[in-house]
Amino acid sequence: MTKKSKEGLSVKKQENFSEWFSQILKKAELIDLRLDLKGFMVYRPLAAQIIENMFKLYEEELQKRGHELTRMPMVIPEENLKKEASHVKGFTPEVFWLKEIGNEKLALRPTSETLYTPMFSLWINSYRDLPMKLYQKGSVFRFDTKATRPLIRTREIIWIETHNAFATKEEAEKQVQEDIEITEKVMHQKFGIPFLPMKRPSWDKFPGAEYTIGSDVFMPDGKLIQQPSTHLMGQKFSKVFEATFKNFNEKKEYLWTTAYGPAISRIFASIIATHGDDSGLIIPFCIAPTQVIIIPIFNAKNKNVLLKEAKKIKKKLESLGIRSKIDDSEKRPGEKYHIWELKGVPFRIEIGEKELNSKKVTLYTRDLGKKEFLKTKEISKLKKLGKIFDERIKEKAEEIMNGRILNAKTKEELKKIIKNKKIARINFCSTKESGEKCAQIIEKEINAEIRGNLANKKEKATGKCIICGKSAKEVVYVGKSY
Amino acid sequence: MTKKSKEGLSVKKQENFSEWFSQILKKAELIDLRLDLKGFMVYRPLAAQIIENMFKLYEEELQKRGHELTRMPMVIPEENLKKEASHVKGFTPEVFWLKEIGNEKLALRPTSETLYTPMFSLWINSYRDLPMKLYQKGSVFRFDTKATRPLIRTREIIWIETHNAFATKEEAEKQVQEDIEITEKVMHQKFGIPFLPMKRPSWDKFPGAEYTIGSDVFMPDGKLIQQPSTHLMGQKFSKVFEATFKNFNEKKEYLWTTAYGPAISRIFASIIATHGDDSGLIIPFCIAPTQVIIIPIFNAKNKNVLLKEAKKIKKKLESLGIRSKIDDSEKRPGEKYHIWELKGVPFRIEIGEKELNSKKVTLYTRDLGKKEFLKTKEISKLKKLGKIFDERIKEKAEEIMNGRILNAKTKEELKKIIKNKKIARINFCSTKESGEKCAQIIEKEINAEIRGNLANKKEKATGKCIICGKSAKEVVYVGKSY
Repeated sequence: MTKKSKEGLSVKKQENFSEWFSQILKKAELIDLRLDLKGFMVYRPLAAQIIENMFKLYEEELQKRGHELTRMPMVIPEENLKKEASHVKGFTPEVFWLKEIGNEKLALRPTSETLYTPMFSLWINSYRDLPMKLYQKGSVFRFDTKATRPLIRTREIIWIETHNAFATKEEAEKQVQEDIEITEKVMHQKFGIPFLPMKRPSWDKFPGAEYTIGSDVFMPDGKLIQQPSTHLMGQKFSKVFEATFKNFNEKKEYLWTTAYGPAISRIFASIIATHGDDSGLIIPFCIAPTQVIIIPIFNAKNKNVLLKEAKKIKKKLESLGIRSKIDDSEKRPGEKYHIWELKGVPFRIEIGEKELNSKKVTLYTRDLGKKEFLKTKEISKLKKLGKIFDERIKEKAEEIMNGRILNAKTKEELKKIIKNKKIARINFCSTKESGEKCAQIIEKEINAEIRGNLANKKEKATGKCIICGKSAKEVVYVGKSY
Repeated sequence: MTKKSKEGLSVKKQENFSEWFSQILKKAELIDLRLDLKGFMVYRPLAAQIIENMFKLYEEELQKRGHELTRMPMVIPEENLKKEASHVKGFTPEVFWLKEIGNEKLALRPTSETLYTPMFSLWINSYRDLPMKLYQKGSVFRFDTKATRPLIRTREIIWIETHNAFATKEEAEKQVQEDIEITEKVMHQKFGIPFLPMKRPSWDKFPGAEYTIGSDVFMPDGKLIQQPSTHLMGQKFSKVFEATFKNFNEKKEYLWTTAYGPAISRIFASIIATHGDDSGLIIPFCIAPTQVIIIPIFNAKNKNVLLKEAKKIKKKLESLGIRSKIDDSEKRPGEKYHIWELKGVPFRIEIGEKELNSKKVTLYTRDLGKKEFLKTKEISKLKKLGKIFDERIKEKAEEIMNGRILNAKTKEELKKIIKNKKIARINFCSTKESGEKCAQIIEKEINAEIRGNLANKKEKATGKCIICGKSAKEVVYVGKSY
């Protein structure tokens, strides 16, 4: 184990994304892996606070739409976990088991359907108790024999999971669409991460679900990463847990359930990857723990007066609801600039004697790398500038994504697109069982995956499947993935 | 498993506290134990949201005092856990172990000293990096063969733990005192729970600590419950983890560390127990998810106009930062009153046609059980009334506590006080090792415990130890405990 170093990034994001990502986690003091615990991470204050702010925005949106906070145990009795056959099959190999204490066989929860559904059976009597929309936040645990990657493929995942019960399939499917809207509202509109809502092929759905819609996000290395997914569980879980309700006619029916799982730690990986540049992190204004760093440029003589001015500015920003910090350490100004750029603070205010005398501050905007003057009395403009900041980095991410999706009319074209680290849009026979053979051919020959078809918009297929030549029923997206 | 019931409490708090407590958890829809998982609980929305609000107030106070949020893994490698000898001895019997995966021997964290101290050794180089004040929130796990009790004695504890590193013992001890202040500021002043800060006898300290200060809170059954405790770890952990820093003279020294652990789930138990009455919960205004319940009393004819008025009031309360809800369900008003009293909402606003016409509302205050009129245009008074509400329930708790502490001059007096479910204040030989024999006598003969001496105020002992008759060095408090 070596002590920390504070120098900048030594690789460029476009040249070696993987190394850039590793360096930024370490040098911006986000994640520490030196506990030597495979797949588990130490979140340092900057990362922990960003994640906290992400939770807050996500929960606001969930609560606004009627989801209520709950807390489930971190463990699941074996009996519950093994009740739904396909769920067991999918999750059992990934489960961490506790050593037995007496007769108690407990698993660390890998996800919580088998905790919520039995509770639904107790809490819901009649259609009057519906819908029931709950959520919890915290950790789930999945054991994976593959290589782990910090934030991206981990054994402890920090997430939100919603679990919802409805009287009809129609209402449940409406919830699934609402979940996509929530991803749009928070991950895209607030965190600036565009995505493709992909209805997964039947061979790639959540174990136990009727269907799954994943949000695919682009990584700079050309691969896709699955972000929030939402699942129509249908009546599969309610049937095994006898979770019923009495309908309007006093007849018993099984509940329709759905679940939605934004993995905050993983979305954080996309935020770092999407917005960061060769100088370090760029954190969206809305979740930055420090939105403005104030750097007084002082000497022994004017230190007091400049610190006083810095504090005045900080107080003003506070009154506007803007989170700021003063860096009054003894480092050289250049060194301070460097550190706070690495840490992705959206705005920097510099105040030296010159600025003080002319009643201005120097304002540096992180993503533009641009300095300009701002009149001290107009400092409240930062509120609007923060919004523009988030809008700008979002649009940049959208442009990159849109340029990456190309139509492929033949297998050869598909091969070329994938080779160029882009995403292909193809006519395809079927995402139902019958299409799995063609998907396997793509996987073997091109080393890419069918990610599914657009879940919130019907795209009409024309002509033939570019693999088997049969009539194409769907337009699907193909890419490499994490 | 039986379906829920919504009737009221069938026992009185003073007559059968234990049953009262069990009923309130169930009937106010706070905690569900029907998953049949010993020591693990399901927190329903009301409990989960109160706990969330408690976290918020606690964290505000911690962040104000320079503690930064972090997140540690939920597991600890065996090697770390077993490094500090007395820590191992104290915690090993309580540890949940994971089934081994290859060579990885992992424990669910029972507390996180053995995660934080190795990180301090990496993050801290010099005195310039000090103090380092960190915290995390989440679950810790302690296996206990004794009977579990919901919120009070659980296997999964929901808490905050701070871990702090300093250059000198003096600064570390100052932190321990600051921790008591934080308990005072939040648990007492905000949640209304008075406490005795008790420096524990040497035989009752945290495994691995130099000394421990626990906050003892009174339960209605006469027993004490330990709430937040703070520990001077001294250099014990820093020595085994080689956590050093270079002092001003460039010489290596071991860090001085402290830890503080408010168990939010357990403090919630004290809030329920202290403030609740025979009609149900009474939740402090500052953490109530619903601070004001608005109940329009309508018939088919005036339903629309009364609902409109209710929404207007809700909007007004929102603009004041007051959390409110409208109960527009089809239940009878009396039934609604009953439910929201059971759930401990501080204020209820009733609006019927009479109120509407006279531009008033009926205001019911939960703890006083009093109805009065409030002019609709003076609704903003509720902000101040909320503060007074919290002040009033706090003062009531203080009165009860103060009446419970009695001086005992002889063993007989001590016996009597304990029998009367009170707390005794006695002259005692010593809380160091030499006093353990006398403590054992008290435990055997009187079935009570030496809880320690006041940690934030020196009380001078006079005369002799009431047990052994040797010169009394300390004034200590004796009671039964959970």
